[in-house]
Amino acid sequence: MRPYDVIRKKRDGLELSREEINFFVNGYTAGEIPDYQASALLMAIFLKGMTAAETLCLTEAIRDSGTRPDFSDIKGVRVDKHSTGGVGDKTSLVVGPIVAACGMTVAKISGRGLGHTGGTVDKLEAIPGYRTALSGDEFARVVNRTGIAIVGQSGEIAPADKKLYALRDVTATVESLPLIASSIMGKKLAAGDDVILLDVKTGSGSFLKSPENATELARVMVETGKAAGKKTAALITDMDSPLGNEIGNANEVAEAVRTLKGKGPDDLTYLCRMLSANILVLAGLGSEAECLSIVDEALYGGKAFDKFAEMVGDQGGDPSYISDTSLFGRASATKEFLAVRDGFISGVNAEGYGRTSLILGAGREKLTDGIDPLAGITLLKKRGDRVEKGEPIAILMTSDERRIFPALDEIGKSTFYSDEKPVIPPMILGKVD
Amino acid sequence: MRPYDVIRKKRDGLELSREEINFFVNGYTAGEIPDYQASALLMAIFLKGMTAAETLCLTEAIRDSGTRPDFSDIKGVRVDKHSTGGVGDKTSLVVGPIVAACGMTVAKISGRGLGHTGGTVDKLEAIPGYRTALSGDEFARVVNRTGIAIVGQSGEIAPADKKLYALRDVTATVESLPLIASSIMGKKLAAGDDVILLDVKTGSGSFLKSPENATELARVMVETGKAAGKKTAALITDMDSPLGNEIGNANEVAEAVRTLKGKGPDDLTYLCRMLSANILVLAGLGSEAECLSIVDEALYGGKAFDKFAEMVGDQGGDPSYISDTSLFGRASATKEFLAVRDGFISGVNAEGYGRTSLILGAGREKLTDGIDPLAGITLLKKRGDRVEKGEPIAILMTSDERRIFPALDEIGKSTFYSDEKPVIPPMILGKVD
Repeated sequence: MRPYDVIRKKRDGLELSREEINFFVNGYTAGEIPDYQASALLMAIFLKGMTAAETLCLTEAIRDSGTRPDFSDIKGVRVDKHSTGGVGDKTSLVVGPIVAACGMTVAKISGRGLGHTGGTVDKLEAIPGYRTALSGDEFARVVNRTGIAIVGQSGEIAPADKKLYALRDVTATVESLPLIASSIMGKKLAAGDDVILLDVKTGSGSFLKSPENATELARVMVETGKAAGKKTAALITDMDSPLGNEIGNANEVAEAVRTLKGKGPDDLTYLCRMLSANILVLAGLGSEAECLSIVDEALYGGKAFDKFAEMVGDQGGDPSYISDTSLFGRASATKEFLAVRDGFISGVNAEGYGRTSLILGAGREKLTDGIDPLAGITLLKKRGDRVEKGEPIAILMTSDERRIFPALDEIGKSTFYSDEKPVIPPMILGKVD
Repeated sequence: MRPYDVIRKKRDGLELSREEINFFVNGYTAGEIPDYQASALLMAIFLKGMTAAETLCLTEAIRDSGTRPDFSDIKGVRVDKHSTGGVGDKTSLVVGPIVAACGMTVAKISGRGLGHTGGTVDKLEAIPGYRTALSGDEFARVVNRTGIAIVGQSGEIAPADKKLYALRDVTATVESLPLIASSIMGKKLAAGDDVILLDVKTGSGSFLKSPENATELARVMVETGKAAGKKTAALITDMDSPLGNEIGNANEVAEAVRTLKGKGPDDLTYLCRMLSANILVLAGLGSEAECLSIVDEALYGGKAFDKFAEMVGDQGGDPSYISDTSLFGRASATKEFLAVRDGFISGVNAEGYGRTSLILGAGREKLTDGIDPLAGITLLKKRGDRVEKGEPIAILMTSDERRIFPALDEIGKSTFYSDEKPVIPPMILGKVD
């Protein structure tokens, strides 16, 4: 078999076999197939597409490209929720403890933030002492005792995805459904969960700007997950506006804690309850309505909050920050962002809000950049709210005063006004199962 | 401007501007744009195509990528004939002297053979002493005195094409009309001729298997040549069967000499007369019929042969080999290829005949391989001829006896028989001007 023949076959719109896909992915990961042949194949896939069978083979080749973590010591039904990335998305910090409190096992491997989207690992590291790198033994011990642990990804999981993604990023081949689906699902399947609920975001803060594209991606990923033998479903959710009122790291942990105490913002609370309920549905605990009752008991009865505090302690974090989030303190420089006119906030560019947070120091441009845990944005007004000229819409926070001005510029460009109250779309736009 | 944006634009099927094409070609040639971005763009061009304007810009970017030879000292109307490559194609050795004898200036830069197709430079080098590498001054002196010189390509002409072609060859992006057209025309335009006649081959011995594809390529190249200010036309010619009766190097020179003496095979003689006449038409010497008379006078009056002998002497070759081609001698090992049945030769796979010649030592797999000037094939019977079982169809010639058996196998697989006399297509299938 030659790489040339695989490229030509896809170029001509034909279906690649499992052997051909494995040959190419393994050869590329091992450095035997050069970048220039891989990028030609990626462009051919981008323009000619892939069948469901090809997408599954590519996903499994990515899954099998590295060492898969050994979770054989972990007990129970392992569940995971994966979001395609948004702004202010701290649902993992809320949903994980809820479903663990409902008896599920959450052995979660999370990512770091990149560009305008934040990452769960960065948020957790805002808690003093919290360790996101545990040995396999430690990880299993925490999960088996508490029912939940959240750690960072080690280098060896699905290395093919890392290499392919870096190449796609510079060859204009990112926005391809089979390539996105296999990248996400390859990593998810490598983690070996029994139940996978996907939170596919759409809108200005996500990379899928239309609900149609999001639904199509969800469909491909759910099919792929099921074909690989996993219980898989997806919710299509709105990311046209940031989720909750906090964007950053320490402030997002504090908001997650408020939500686990039953005092979170409506949009975040509703989404976390629905995501949790749908995980329980996949795990076979009943209908969505039945599962929502189970979820609400865990959430409003305080068990979910207890689970979170227990996990933080187990992973070396200081639990006093969870009982009293004011201990996080405040950034040295803060600045109010004021409304420029009377009216309603008709909408925001959520990606622009994410970039504002990045500019303030809460995110990173490159994976090697450091982050400022106290930097970020607190939203006082959101899409649909009435504002008067000069009224504060948000508070910008940073440890580096020089970042205030460019951040104000960015958030200003990302905020839109209207005379009429805008229609707000529902949080959950659809479901694929 | 970023390479990424150029790739994305072509990926989305949009027309690239002259600036974008120049930026990419120049950046790639200079090594500033990596292979993996160039191969992604090539695949996008392959699948999305290029407009006539884009093809012209790409052609001119390739033309301008290197140092263009300085032909300012060369006098007269400079004409060239370019073939897309065939088997047994020695027309350059015949057409050049004919049109030079008709007053045209032929300052020709030819290629070496690769794979199943031969190259004019290799054939001329079979003549002892013939120098295919002349300095610019020497080249101009020979052309101005004799009206014709044929040399090999120096490294600096259109280096973008060399680099792009090598990449296309390993990324399944060779067979794209705009990429083929810009590759051929970029090099042709760099040579700076006033008149360009293209001989676009179609059939089993060419890379364009159908006349429709050949006509389409001819149309794109003729448009591009005209848009660049050159008098350009193309003949679509049959390459379903080797041209003439000799395939190799020394034996092809000998056949060219016989043709210049008016004693060549019908197919080769007819094609050379038509190509020569059409060059004169483009140069403004009259209608095709009028130009054919001028050609026939030069050919059958002996002036064309004299021109060839003069050029060989001027370039250091031993003219006695031209007056008496038996001086070339014969290969040490020869073997007859015999008909396996009674009937007609219904057709041959011309590419297979080219590969047979390559196996015998007359061609090269890689540009760095050496060749055996006496190796090759003499055809005794051709497509449409009646044969009896055991009657010789061809004589295989080589200096390495071990090559005989695999060559016999290859030519055997490439020869087809029928009971009925097959219909032979015309040599010239169309004209684009």
